[in-house]
Amino acid sequence: MNVGERHYRTIWLSDDKRSVEIIDQRWLPHEFRVETIGTVAGVATAIRDMWVRGAPLIGVTAAYGVAIQMKDDPSDEALDAVWETLNRTRPTAINLRWALDEMRRFLKPLAPEERAEAAYRRAAEIADEDVGLNRAIGENGLAIIKEIAARKQQGESVNILTHCNAGWLATVDYGTATAPIYLATEAGIPVHVYVDETRPRNQGAQLTAWEMAGHGVPHTLIVDNAGGHLMQHGDIDMVIVGTDRTTANGDVCNKIGTYLKALAAADNDVPFYVALPSPTIDWTVTDGLAEIPIEERSGDEVSLVWGKTADGKIAQVRVSPDATPAANPAFDVTPARLVTGLITERGVAKASREGLKAMFPERG
Amino acid sequence: MNVGERHYRTIWLSDDKRSVEIIDQRWLPHEFRVETIGTVAGVATAIRDMWVRGAPLIGVTAAYGVAIQMKDDPSDEALDAVWETLNRTRPTAINLRWALDEMRRFLKPLAPEERAEAAYRRAAEIADEDVGLNRAIGENGLAIIKEIAARKQQGESVNILTHCNAGWLATVDYGTATAPIYLATEAGIPVHVYVDETRPRNQGAQLTAWEMAGHGVPHTLIVDNAGGHLMQHGDIDMVIVGTDRTTANGDVCNKIGTYLKALAAADNDVPFYVALPSPTIDWTVTDGLAEIPIEERSGDEVSLVWGKTADGKIAQVRVSPDATPAANPAFDVTPARLVTGLITERGVAKASREGLKAMFPERG
Repeated sequence: MNVGERHYRTIWLSDDKRSVEIIDQRWLPHEFRVETIGTVAGVATAIRDMWVRGAPLIGVTAAYGVAIQMKDDPSDEALDAVWETLNRTRPTAINLRWALDEMRRFLKPLAPEERAEAAYRRAAEIADEDVGLNRAIGENGLAIIKEIAARKQQGESVNILTHCNAGWLATVDYGTATAPIYLATEAGIPVHVYVDETRPRNQGAQLTAWEMAGHGVPHTLIVDNAGGHLMQHGDIDMVIVGTDRTTANGDVCNKIGTYLKALAAADNDVPFYVALPSPTIDWTVTDGLAEIPIEERSGDEVSLVWGKTADGKIAQVRVSPDATPAANPAFDVTPARLVTGLITERGVAKASREGLKAMFPERG
Repeated sequence: MNVGERHYRTIWLSDDKRSVEIIDQRWLPHEFRVETIGTVAGVATAIRDMWVRGAPLIGVTAAYGVAIQMKDDPSDEALDAVWETLNRTRPTAINLRWALDEMRRFLKPLAPEERAEAAYRRAAEIADEDVGLNRAIGENGLAIIKEIAARKQQGESVNILTHCNAGWLATVDYGTATAPIYLATEAGIPVHVYVDETRPRNQGAQLTAWEMAGHGVPHTLIVDNAGGHLMQHGDIDMVIVGTDRTTANGDVCNKIGTYLKALAAADNDVPFYVALPSPTIDWTVTDGLAEIPIEERSGDEVSLVWGKTADGKIAQVRVSPDATPAANPAFDVTPARLVTGLITERGVAKASREGLKAMFPERG
């Protein structure tokens, strides 16, 4: 999407047709840095150290990593080696493994001298496929926004609350939860986004707010505590969030705090939508609360907050006593009963086994 | 309560029998500073600039301010002047106005030469009355904790979640929401407190966590987003929060985010208690959501976070883009239907008009 006047994706091929350029997201929103990466080691670092993040973007970055390797050495051994190297960078990232498998499956049957060109072509396809998925999610979510806008006074904004960053920065472009918002903006429908700051890592304050500011979407940052109050007073028309994993019965695993917003939405008759590409549906899991293990991350993410000082330096401050331990569960599960609908690339499914089966009969 | 080895109140008379000593809370949890204040101007600064905060503590501090004035000049004019000066420091603080009225009512009938001594005596009484109220709240809340502890395995802790700081730092001693916790600790009942960091001002991370650490109460800091997840997994036995204002029908106005925790508690059958001294019941208001105006504070409290850097300096960092505006509603209203009980100095009332009437028949 736009960063000021110019349109960007999160990753694109360099003019040298060998390297890729990425936005180094570690410095957002305070510094916008584009880095050129031309080695497998560089790709591994970018994934492992979270210069890029978000499942789809990690996958695409890894695919380009394989392509870079094929340019240097298109042998079977090199193909297996780059698979190993990159798969180790974020072992739990589903899309990473999927993209590496896909690249190897696609390249193995080819003669080594054909592999480099084919690899860059396939990596670009995977990137475009992600954009296509998100755009389709956007169209399906746009229909919901249009319906709400139709009930508003002329010129009145549709107020959308979102949590965390399921934005274009987590994908190649458009994002998932943000895709309907960007398409509404393109369609001239006035939207205003309440951005949950999303403690502890502040992805809302740092990334979603930066996206909105860059693309010119009217938005307001709020603390995670404020959403319920806003809903009580009619200030939120709908909630759209992303998801890391959705179960076969429609339970939604997403960033910690999502469940609290879903409860408030239900209590105030505010529709609560989850935007997701169908590959994030885990058809093997039914009870999200009982079956999905929740990652417990370092308490330092709670105790230490980073940002920009008044004189423009990046600094980290401790907000709690040295002696106080912190717990940091990274995700929670929102039961399907609290979800109004699942916005997928095929359409909006009811958050239930039946709803998902009807939308994806081939998986039922 | 204890700060390490030593017991403190938040305010006490200096050895010179004229000045008061207070804990300057602006530097907590990073620095523990005790300040001696011997002038009305000093008292006004301490209240206005939030060296002291919390309704009961503000009231007691103001009462001592009147006493200091009486030592300097016990005339009627001086009494009226100090009332004016101190009442202007935090115009919306109910206890401030109450304490100033009470001191003037008490002192006016006395001969000027008797006023100084009487003023210090009455200020000390007001302080002791606050401690007495909180201790009574503590005893009533302790009964609830004991009941939960009785259902636990031997040695298993009662897990209590609290939001914001309704602790001893907001009162003279014990606090309101924390009083049952401190009494449980004194009674040898194992408790463990989950402390919501309480964005945007981080009163949980900065003050409640510091209180718990100082008194040796086992505790864990969490982001405000985490409480729902913990309740879903049975990790919370009860919630206790304070309140700024409770309506005649039991609606509870408290720090922003309280409502979200009450929703999660109801969804998971976790008892949700509010601790309050009866003077914070506003008998003139019935519908909290419709009738209580919510203070909108500066967005800078959301965008800027302060704390301690690695080299021990106090610093402030911006967490969001410069171009992003922030909204900052400071309180929300938890409807009575979500409140299990109101822990008052008289006992635990049902959060309803009938429940409060039965407990305070003289106000019905």
